[in-house]
Amino acid sequence: MNELTIDLKTDSKVPLYEQIYEYIRGDIRKGYLKSGDRLPSTRALSKHLEISRSTVELAYEQLESEGYIESMPYRGFFVSQIEDLYELKDIRPQKAAVQQKKPHQYLYDFTLNGVDLKSFPYSIWRKISKEILLNDQAELFRLGDSQGEYGLRKAICNYLHQARGVNCEPEQIIVGAGNDYLLMMLGSILGSESRIAVENPTYKRAYRIFDNMSFRVRTIEMDQSGMNVEKLRDSGCNVAFVMPSHQYPLGIVMPIKRRMELLHWAEETEDRYIIEDDYDSEFRYKGKPIPSLQGVDADGKVVYMGTFSKSIAPAIRMSYMVLPFPLLQEYARKFRFLHSTVSKIDQLVVEQFMEEGYYERHLNKMRALYKNRHDVLLNCLKQWKDYFSISGENAGVHLLLHLKNGMSEEEFMEAAKKKEIHVYGLSEYYITIPTKKYQPTILLGYANMDEGKIKKAVEVLGTVFSNE
Amino acid sequence: MNELTIDLKTDSKVPLYEQIYEYIRGDIRKGYLKSGDRLPSTRALSKHLEISRSTVELAYEQLESEGYIESMPYRGFFVSQIEDLYELKDIRPQKAAVQQKKPHQYLYDFTLNGVDLKSFPYSIWRKISKEILLNDQAELFRLGDSQGEYGLRKAICNYLHQARGVNCEPEQIIVGAGNDYLLMMLGSILGSESRIAVENPTYKRAYRIFDNMSFRVRTIEMDQSGMNVEKLRDSGCNVAFVMPSHQYPLGIVMPIKRRMELLHWAEETEDRYIIEDDYDSEFRYKGKPIPSLQGVDADGKVVYMGTFSKSIAPAIRMSYMVLPFPLLQEYARKFRFLHSTVSKIDQLVVEQFMEEGYYERHLNKMRALYKNRHDVLLNCLKQWKDYFSISGENAGVHLLLHLKNGMSEEEFMEAAKKKEIHVYGLSEYYITIPTKKYQPTILLGYANMDEGKIKKAVEVLGTVFSNE
Repeated sequence: MNELTIDLKTDSKVPLYEQIYEYIRGDIRKGYLKSGDRLPSTRALSKHLEISRSTVELAYEQLESEGYIESMPYRGFFVSQIEDLYELKDIRPQKAAVQQKKPHQYLYDFTLNGVDLKSFPYSIWRKISKEILLNDQAELFRLGDSQGEYGLRKAICNYLHQARGVNCEPEQIIVGAGNDYLLMMLGSILGSESRIAVENPTYKRAYRIFDNMSFRVRTIEMDQSGMNVEKLRDSGCNVAFVMPSHQYPLGIVMPIKRRMELLHWAEETEDRYIIEDDYDSEFRYKGKPIPSLQGVDADGKVVYMGTFSKSIAPAIRMSYMVLPFPLLQEYARKFRFLHSTVSKIDQLVVEQFMEEGYYERHLNKMRALYKNRHDVLLNCLKQWKDYFSISGENAGVHLLLHLKNGMSEEEFMEAAKKKEIHVYGLSEYYITIPTKKYQPTILLGYANMDEGKIKKAVEVLGTVFSNE
Repeated sequence: MNELTIDLKTDSKVPLYEQIYEYIRGDIRKGYLKSGDRLPSTRALSKHLEISRSTVELAYEQLESEGYIESMPYRGFFVSQIEDLYELKDIRPQKAAVQQKKPHQYLYDFTLNGVDLKSFPYSIWRKISKEILLNDQAELFRLGDSQGEYGLRKAICNYLHQARGVNCEPEQIIVGAGNDYLLMMLGSILGSESRIAVENPTYKRAYRIFDNMSFRVRTIEMDQSGMNVEKLRDSGCNVAFVMPSHQYPLGIVMPIKRRMELLHWAEETEDRYIIEDDYDSEFRYKGKPIPSLQGVDADGKVVYMGTFSKSIAPAIRMSYMVLPFPLLQEYARKFRFLHSTVSKIDQLVVEQFMEEGYYERHLNKMRALYKNRHDVLLNCLKQWKDYFSISGENAGVHLLLHLKNGMSEEEFMEAAKKKEIHVYGLSEYYITIPTKKYQPTILLGYANMDEGKIKKAVEVLGTVFSNE
C-alpha cells in the first residue's frame, strides 16, 4: 500500500498536517493500516496530495511521537506493532454522573450554617482588592510561602493574642483553604496511628473527615462541662477534638476546671494532643468572649483552629491553625514542601482587611446584628415557653429547644416542614445516639434570618409547639 | 474574706467589669482566693467600689461562665473547686519556631518550576476581577458548589475536550486548591488499602504526599516508553501514577502501544486505576499537543489531573481532576460534604478568563514565548554539544543534558554553583537510584529566563562543560 487518498479540506480550520495525521491515525485504529505496513514516503505523499513536503513531515512526526508509526533509517515509515489497538473500543460518554438531588426549598430556614451576607463590607473589600491588584504584579502571582504569607500570619497572630488570648508566634500558624483541608493535613501530621476522641454530639464534618482518613475515631460521653476526661482516659485515644468556647452543637462553655483536667490528661504522655476548634468564638452576647484553651496551655499540647468562614464569609476559603512546637517540627518534615492552598491575592486582601481595622469593625457590627436577632428570637419564643426549655443561648448563632410538648424530633420537624419551616433535630449531630433517656431537641440557627422573618417563623412555629 | 480592694482605673480602655473580672481571676489563679471562699455579694462589692451593681454582676457572670466561681441560690458566690489550678504554670512563648534556612541566591537559575510572569495579562485579570466584584454580591460570598462552580467546570470540560481530547462531563470534574490537595483527596477516595506505583524518577511531590498519607508506594522501572507494565503487574500495585504526555522529569512521551498496555493492565481487575498527571501538556513545540491517555480510556480507568499553576500562574491555587464513574460515586459518598477549597471569586475569574478566549490566547502567547527560549537555549548549547547529549527537548519547559565530559552530577553542579549558576541533577528526582549504570544528567528549566540571560548563562556553563 503506497498511496493514501486523503480528501484534504483547504478551507477547514483544521491545519492540513492535522488532517493527514487524523486520517492515518484513523486508518491505523480501524485496522485498515496494519502493523508493519509501509507508509508512502513524505516526498511521494506530498506530490500525490499536492502539498508541501514539510506538511507531510509534520504529520508523520506527530504520528511518530505518539507511537503510531516508526521511522527506519533509509527504509521509510512503518506502522508500529500495536497489539489490540484496532480493538479500540468506542469511547462512549461515561454513565450519567451521580445525581445531586435538589433539596426542598423552605420559606423559613433556621440553618445553623448561615452567615448574614447583606452586612458584608463589599465596597471595602472591592477597594482593597483593587489596591492589591495594582501592586507589584509579578510578585502577586508568584508562589508564596507554604504556611501562608508572613504578613497575614502576623495579623492573625495579633488578633488571636488580643481577642482570644492565644499565645503564639506567626511561625506556628498554618493558613489553609478551609477547616476541612487543615483537618486533613493535621490528621497526617498526627500520624495514621492516632486514635481520635470526639464529643458526642459533635461537629460531624470533623468526625467524617477523620473517619474517611481511616483514623480510629471514638465518641466520648459528655456531661454538662463537656468531654468526660475519665472516659477519655479509658478510651485509649491520644487526640481529643473539642470546642471549649462553645461546643457544637450543644453550646456548652467548658469551665476552667474541665480545661485543666483535659490539659493534665494531655500532659501525661508525649503523644497526646488536644485539637481546639474555636469556630465561632467571636460571637458572644454576655460579657466578653471566653478565652481560648490554648492560652492556658503551658506544655504545647493544644492545636488551635480558627476560620474566616463564619466571621467574614463562607466563600472566603481561609482557615488557620496554630501548631505547638513538636507538631510544627513534624509539619516542617512532612508538609513544608506543600504549596499553600490559598491564593496569594486573597491572603493579601484579608491581611489588609485585618490590619486596617476593618475586621474588628466588621466583627463588632456582626455581633451587634446577631445579638439583635438573638434577642428577638428569645423574645418571640417566650410566648411558647411552656413547651420547651432553652439552652446554649449565650453565644454563637444558634440555640437549642428541649421539647416538653410530647413530640419526638421527627414529628416536630415533619410538622414544621408542612408549614414550610426548616428546623434541625439534635439527633442528627450524634455519631451514636446515647442509650440514656434522650430528650427531643430542636436547633434553631438565626444568623441568616432578619428580625421580621424570625418573628413570622416563630409565630408559625407556635402552632407546631401547641399542635394546633 | 468579704472585701476586695480593687484599684479600678476609670480612665482605662479596659471596661470596669473586665478589670474586676481580671482581678478576681488573678487572685484565684494565684491561690489567694481558695476553693470554697465566698465572694462579697454584688451589692456589697458595688457599694465598696462605688460603681453600679450591674457592672459587678457582669464581672461575676463572666467568672461564672468560665467556671472560676459558682453561684449558690440564696447563699451567694463561691470560688469553684479547681484542682491544681493555682499551679498554673507560667506560659512562656514556645521555643523558637523551626528555622527556615535562606537558600543561596544564584545569578542564573535554571529552575524547573519557573513560570514567566512578565507576560501575565494583568490588566485583563484586573478587569475581570473588577467586573466579578460588581456582580450579585451576597451570592459571591456564599458557599459554592463543593466540586467547584458549575460554570467553571463546564469551561474546563470544553477546554479539555478540545485541547486534550479528554472525554468527560462537568459532573466528573472536581476543582481544588492545587494538585497537592487533590492528590490527598484522591488518595482518600482510592482508600488506604491502595498500593500506588510511581515511575522512577518521578514527580517527587506526588510520591511524598502518598508516602506521608501512609500509602504503600512502589517505584516501577522505566524504559524508553515509560513505566514498564510487566514490572507494574509484578509489583502488586493497583494504582499507577504516570505522566504520559510528558514524563517528569525525563520528558518521555508515552507511545500509544504502552498506553494501551497500561489500560489493559487497569482493565484486568476492578480496583485498578491510572492517575494521569497532565501537568504541562500545554507546551509542545513540534506539531500539536499529545492527546491525553484519558481520551482513549473506554472503561473509566483513568483519573485525569490538570492545573492552572503552570498555565496561568503559580499563585492561582487551582487544579482539577476528572474522575471516572466508580470513583465519582466514592467521592460523592466520602467527600461531597466537603467545602470547596477555592474561593468563589477566583473560580468566577478563571471561568470568565476561559470563556472569553483569554486563556487560549494566553496559552498561545506563552507557547510562543517558551518556544523562543527553548530555541535559543538549544542553539546556545550547540557549541558545547560534544560534552553531552540532549533529550526531552520537544515539550515542556525543561530539557536534559546527559553528560559525557567525565564529570559527576555533583561535580558539575558544584562547578556551576561557583559560577553562580543553579542547575539541577537528575538523581534528585529518583526515589531510589537505579542500580544499573547511571549516566550523570543535568536538568535545565528555561521558563523563567529571558533570551539574554539564557545566552549569558550558557556561555558561563560552557566553561563548566569544558572544565576551563
